[in-house]
Amino acid sequence: MTIRLDVSGMLARAVASGATAGQLADLGPRLVVAHEELLADAARGALGFRELEAQADERERVLSWAREEASRLDDVVVLGIGGSALGAQALRSALLGREWNLGDHHRRGGRPRLHVVDNVDPRSVRAMLDAVNLPHTRFLVISKSGSTAETMSQYLAVRERLTSLDLPVREHVAFVTDPWKGVLRRVAAAEGIPAFEVPENVGGRFSVLTPVGTLPAALLGMDVGALIAGATAMRDRCASGDLRANPALAFAALQWNAHTHAGQGIHVLMPYSDALREVAPWFVQLWAESLGKRSTAAHQKGVGPTPIAAVGATDQHAQVQLFMEGPADKTITFIDVEEHPDELVIPTDGAPAELAYLGGHGFGELLRAEGAATAGALAQMGRPTMTLSVTRADAWHLGGLFMFFELATIYAGHLYGVNPLDQPGVELGKQLTYYRFGHPDWKSMRETWDALPKSDPAWVL
Amino acid sequence: MTIRLDVSGMLARAVASGATAGQLADLGPRLVVAHEELLADAARGALGFRELEAQADERERVLSWAREEASRLDDVVVLGIGGSALGAQALRSALLGREWNLGDHHRRGGRPRLHVVDNVDPRSVRAMLDAVNLPHTRFLVISKSGSTAETMSQYLAVRERLTSLDLPVREHVAFVTDPWKGVLRRVAAAEGIPAFEVPENVGGRFSVLTPVGTLPAALLGMDVGALIAGATAMRDRCASGDLRANPALAFAALQWNAHTHAGQGIHVLMPYSDALREVAPWFVQLWAESLGKRSTAAHQKGVGPTPIAAVGATDQHAQVQLFMEGPADKTITFIDVEEHPDELVIPTDGAPAELAYLGGHGFGELLRAEGAATAGALAQMGRPTMTLSVTRADAWHLGGLFMFFELATIYAGHLYGVNPLDQPGVELGKQLTYYRFGHPDWKSMRETWDALPKSDPAWVL
Repeated sequence: MTIRLDVSGMLARAVASGATAGQLADLGPRLVVAHEELLADAARGALGFRELEAQADERERVLSWAREEASRLDDVVVLGIGGSALGAQALRSALLGREWNLGDHHRRGGRPRLHVVDNVDPRSVRAMLDAVNLPHTRFLVISKSGSTAETMSQYLAVRERLTSLDLPVREHVAFVTDPWKGVLRRVAAAEGIPAFEVPENVGGRFSVLTPVGTLPAALLGMDVGALIAGATAMRDRCASGDLRANPALAFAALQWNAHTHAGQGIHVLMPYSDALREVAPWFVQLWAESLGKRSTAAHQKGVGPTPIAAVGATDQHAQVQLFMEGPADKTITFIDVEEHPDELVIPTDGAPAELAYLGGHGFGELLRAEGAATAGALAQMGRPTMTLSVTRADAWHLGGLFMFFELATIYAGHLYGVNPLDQPGVELGKQLTYYRFGHPDWKSMRETWDALPKSDPAWVL
Repeated sequence: MTIRLDVSGMLARAVASGATAGQLADLGPRLVVAHEELLADAARGALGFRELEAQADERERVLSWAREEASRLDDVVVLGIGGSALGAQALRSALLGREWNLGDHHRRGGRPRLHVVDNVDPRSVRAMLDAVNLPHTRFLVISKSGSTAETMSQYLAVRERLTSLDLPVREHVAFVTDPWKGVLRRVAAAEGIPAFEVPENVGGRFSVLTPVGTLPAALLGMDVGALIAGATAMRDRCASGDLRANPALAFAALQWNAHTHAGQGIHVLMPYSDALREVAPWFVQLWAESLGKRSTAAHQKGVGPTPIAAVGATDQHAQVQLFMEGPADKTITFIDVEEHPDELVIPTDGAPAELAYLGGHGFGELLRAEGAATAGALAQMGRPTMTLSVTRADAWHLGGLFMFFELATIYAGHLYGVNPLDQPGVELGKQLTYYRFGHPDWKSMRETWDALPKSDPAWVL
């Protein structure tokens, strides 16, 4: 059980644009500061995602409630968006697999199906309501603020459907929200709806190891203990300001260095694994929303890398051409899964001669060989790469990956000179939506709306 | 029924970095040439994806075979990767919806489930084999060359499973492949397996309107006639070298202009629609693999934009912070769906006062309001945007979108000075995989493999 980060391919000894000895030397003191800043953030209580021990009681409450609840359920539905959905999607992909919901009760080992509704398209909302067995469904309404328009709309639709069928809301809905504030907390108290806490000091995109992720995980029978143990081990490993001893710091430092010195600001994450493929969009949110903002260090100029999700081997047939021969503005991080306990041999008895070379090899072996070949080909083209290796795609390693990327994001925030914990850039869009929907508090947005550049009919083709 | 492209937000009158009158004037003669080049490509037969009439006979063969076949099926499985899978995934998302496979026979109107296996992870391959009802399953093996390692491995696994159950391969497998060449064509002839043609002059990523897409579409009861009619209408509309009269040319030109003059080389496609969300990864392959390559016009330097898939409203809570406040290196293209025939009103009877503003509005209306608000907010921040509006997310409009982006890609190829129809950069990775797997034809790759930069244990953290 281990996670290793091989950064050899990011160095000048491997690729011409890689980190030079001089750059690594310059990074030294900078990284000591970045790590001290992280410790200062932690000391003032800003990094709740690291405080796994402090959250043990609430986690136990989740596990104990879920143990009672799970056996009566056919369907669990996450109603959430962004950080309230992406973690559940990564957990589902890694620990249940792609066809989970198609299995019958027996094949699922008596565990429920899991649906994640992360949008407000009426077609999807209807499809979900039609697909679940309502009397045996629990809807998890996940919104820290309790004011997320998309999630609250979904909640209202579910609430009406339940009521119209005389199904008690408190027996079919649970909330994951702020411990004290917001609409959901008030409704929970008034109506006796089970409610679990997102700690005040954990923002949405850092919340997968709180009830935001552990509640669906527990209801689906995932190993929450292993998830937290893996995260704890990674946190404890990332305990120094030395690049060579702290993989999360090394990841952040080498990405920032590649961006700063080689203009490589597009950061691809490419798991060679269907199980881990949804880790990539989860990372995209974390990296994009934490780092893409105006930097005080850069006179309010917009900074931040652009993360891209890919999956191997699939994207060898989609994005890899661009990574190989397009502009040299990218780094590529692979995730390699070393063991496939469900390995399947490629059978070549009676196969055409052209396919004989596949014989005796396994699918997992093919996946890993393609990953190594693609990394090699990229290096050959001078493209910088890293590889994160995990022994298996299981709960322990997934927890480790979550913590790894969360810590790296804090370090990167300090290197880029931005606050990785806020997201000021999404407010304007929300406020304009409120205004357009007639929200009484946002009538003042009328001027802003009216001043926006208008569509010109002459340029509508 | 119409598709419109609003490019107002890409112009200097809307955003400071937008196209100026001078740039538009410079584009004029360049675009006349790009269109002439496209016509020349077409004249020499290189653009088979436009030749929808010439493919009518094979399409009729697909429809007629599917009519007989579909009624006996519970499951259709696409075995393919890259261009052989992404089109089917876009069709599934748009025309079946997210929970299709969960519906029983009755709710599906007697139509089968659709699975797309686009990778070689043993866990997924096993899960698929366990999920389908094998005696009532047809596997569509889609590979133009017939040598794609991933697809051939899947095919061999399926073949063995069928044989072990005494199910005749020819009754459970169909091929979509080159009309003349390759392993699959030979096996089809020898074993009487139904085989359909990818025209010689249609490459994988341009093939969704050939049997690569129409065969799964027909088996699932999608309206293939409408799909082709929408594509034909779009092709016929894009018939001049005038930016104002040709939306595909305008899209390509304004993206290229933004990249060239404003450094905006990251091109986001963001449908505000769950139905159309899989159009974005399909576009990513098309744009990345067609344009990301060495340019003869630029002394073999790597050129090409980096496409990014997003989905509204979901990504407002993930990537939009970066698009708003990060570096000004992106353009954002929205897809707006004007009509939601399955609109669902957000019910606010008895809802908390804070949510009353949602009352009387619909989910589809919320989705559209959020799209307009996000476009407005981006414009306010000086970010260039375009909006593609489709009346509905149905087969006709989907066909139109496919053709729109395919034509735009050819125009963009000419503007960037690359051949949009090849993908030389993926060969090295394939050859290294063959070598590692002991393929007899690729022993010569040993030197290349051995010369690659090696991992340095001192840098494995």
